[in-house]
Amino acid sequence: LSYKVSIIGAGNVGSFLGLSLMKAGLDIVQVYSRSLGPAKMLASSCGAEAVQELHTLKKNSDLYIIAIPDDEIRGITSEMIDFKGTVVHTSGSVSIDVFRGRAEKFGVFYPLQTFGETKQKKPEQIPFCLEASDRETRKLLEETAGMISKNIYFLDSEQRKAAHLAAVFASNFTNLLYGFSEELLKDSGLSFDLVRPLIEQSAFKVRVSSPENVQTGPASRGDISTMKAHLELLKNKPELFEIYTKFSKLLAKKYTGKDVEL
Amino acid sequence: LSYKVSIIGAGNVGSFLGLSLMKAGLDIVQVYSRSLGPAKMLASSCGAEAVQELHTLKKNSDLYIIAIPDDEIRGITSEMIDFKGTVVHTSGSVSIDVFRGRAEKFGVFYPLQTFGETKQKKPEQIPFCLEASDRETRKLLEETAGMISKNIYFLDSEQRKAAHLAAVFASNFTNLLYGFSEELLKDSGLSFDLVRPLIEQSAFKVRVSSPENVQTGPASRGDISTMKAHLELLKNKPELFEIYTKFSKLLAKKYTGKDVEL
Repeated sequence: LSYKVSIIGAGNVGSFLGLSLMKAGLDIVQVYSRSLGPAKMLASSCGAEAVQELHTLKKNSDLYIIAIPDDEIRGITSEMIDFKGTVVHTSGSVSIDVFRGRAEKFGVFYPLQTFGETKQKKPEQIPFCLEASDRETRKLLEETAGMISKNIYFLDSEQRKAAHLAAVFASNFTNLLYGFSEELLKDSGLSFDLVRPLIEQSAFKVRVSSPENVQTGPASRGDISTMKAHLELLKNKPELFEIYTKFSKLLAKKYTGKDVEL
Repeated sequence: LSYKVSIIGAGNVGSFLGLSLMKAGLDIVQVYSRSLGPAKMLASSCGAEAVQELHTLKKNSDLYIIAIPDDEIRGITSEMIDFKGTVVHTSGSVSIDVFRGRAEKFGVFYPLQTFGETKQKKPEQIPFCLEASDRETRKLLEETAGMISKNIYFLDSEQRKAAHLAAVFASNFTNLLYGFSEELLKDSGLSFDLVRPLIEQSAFKVRVSSPENVQTGPASRGDISTMKAHLELLKNKPELFEIYTKFSKLLAKKYTGKDVEL
C-alpha cells in the first residue's frame, strides 16, 4: 500500500504527519508552505520537493493534507478545485463543509494531540478523529491514520468541535497552570523541578481513573485555613488570586458539598 | 541502618510512607489512627500494631511520622511532649514551629506528591522537602527520605508553603481541568479516552521544558474565531464559560501581546 501524498503547511502538525507517513512508506511528493524555509526543511526530511507557490502544486497526488491555520483553509481550497486527489484538513474546529463544492473526495484528518518540538512519547496512541465525504475516502483515511496510530475515531464535525474544546481544557489551560506553578516557585527561589514528578503522577492517575475520583488537595478537603494561607501568599498577584479562589470554591463545593468563604 | 518508626495517621500519605519504609527495612512499630479500620489495614501490611488511643503509643520509637490533617497536628503534639524520639509532620503548609516547646528533636518530612489509590509511578523521584530542628535530626530525615527517593530538598517553612501552593496549581487545579474536559466529552457522547494521550503528552512536554515554551492552542495563536466558536458551545455552562474566557485572554495577551475581546 503506497500512494502519493502532498503536505500543505510545514508547521508542527504538517511536519509530524509528513515525517510519520514518510516513515510508514508513503511517497511524500511535495511540501507547500508560504515560507520557503520551513517547506524546504520538512521536504528535505521527507524526500519531497518544497514549493512556495500554490500553482506549482502537482495535481496528481492521491492525498492532500492541509495543515495550516483554520482561517486560511477556505482560501486554499478554492485554489484546488480541479485537483483529482482526496483533500483533507487537520483542524479540530473547521467543519467538513468547507470542502463542499470545492473537491470531489474530501475529509478531515484531525490528530487530537499537542505538537511541537518535543518528540511524541507514544505516537501510536494519538487519537485520529476522521470524517469522510464518502466510503472510499473513509477507507483511505482509516488506512492512512492506521499507519501512525492504533486509535482511530470517526467523529462528525460537531463532535470534533466538542473534542477540540475538551482538549483546550485538558492541555492548553493545564499548561498555563503549569506556568503559574513555575512562576510561584521562581518567586521563592525554587526550581520547577520540585513539581515535575507531581505533574507526571497527576497525569498518570487519570490514565485509567476518572479525574473526579482522584482529586486531592486542600480545597477538596475543605481545608479553609490552608486555602486562606495560600491566598495570603497571592495577595500581590490578582490574576492568580482570582483563579485560586474560583477553583478552590468549585472544588470545595463539589467535594464537601459546602460553599466556602475565602 | 534500622530504627523504630511509628506512623500517626493511616490515610494516603501515612500509608505510602509506612509501606515504603517497611520495604526499605525499617521496623514499623505502631500505626495510630482514630479509626481502627484504616489503622489495622496499614498495620497488618507493615507488620505493626494498630492503635486507636494516643495514650497507647509507645514512647520509645526513634521516629514518629505524623500524617494527619493540618488542623489536627497541633493537638496531637501536645499529647507527645514526653516522647523521646524525633517527631515530624508531613504537611506542606504547617510551620516547623508547631513543635517548639513540645518536642526536643523535630522536623518536617513533606513528600511533594499526590497520593491516593493509584500506585506511585516513580517513587524514587518524589521530592522530599525536609526541615529539621538540629543537625542530628537533619541527618536522620535525610537518611530516611533517601530510603524512598533520590530527590531530597531542604526547604524552610516559608519556601515549603510556596512549594505547596505551586503544587496546588500544578496538580489539584489541573485535575479539575481534566474533569471539565471529561464533562464536555460526555456531553457530546464521547469518551475521556479521547484526551488521555493528550494529557500524557502535555505532562511529558514539561519534563524538561519550561511550560511557557511549549504552549499550544487557539488562545496562544490569537485565533479569535475558534475561541468564539468554543464559547458558543459553553453558553449554557457559566462556570466553564468564565474560566475559558479568563484563561484564553491571559494566554492571548501573553503570546500575542494583544488584548482580545471575546
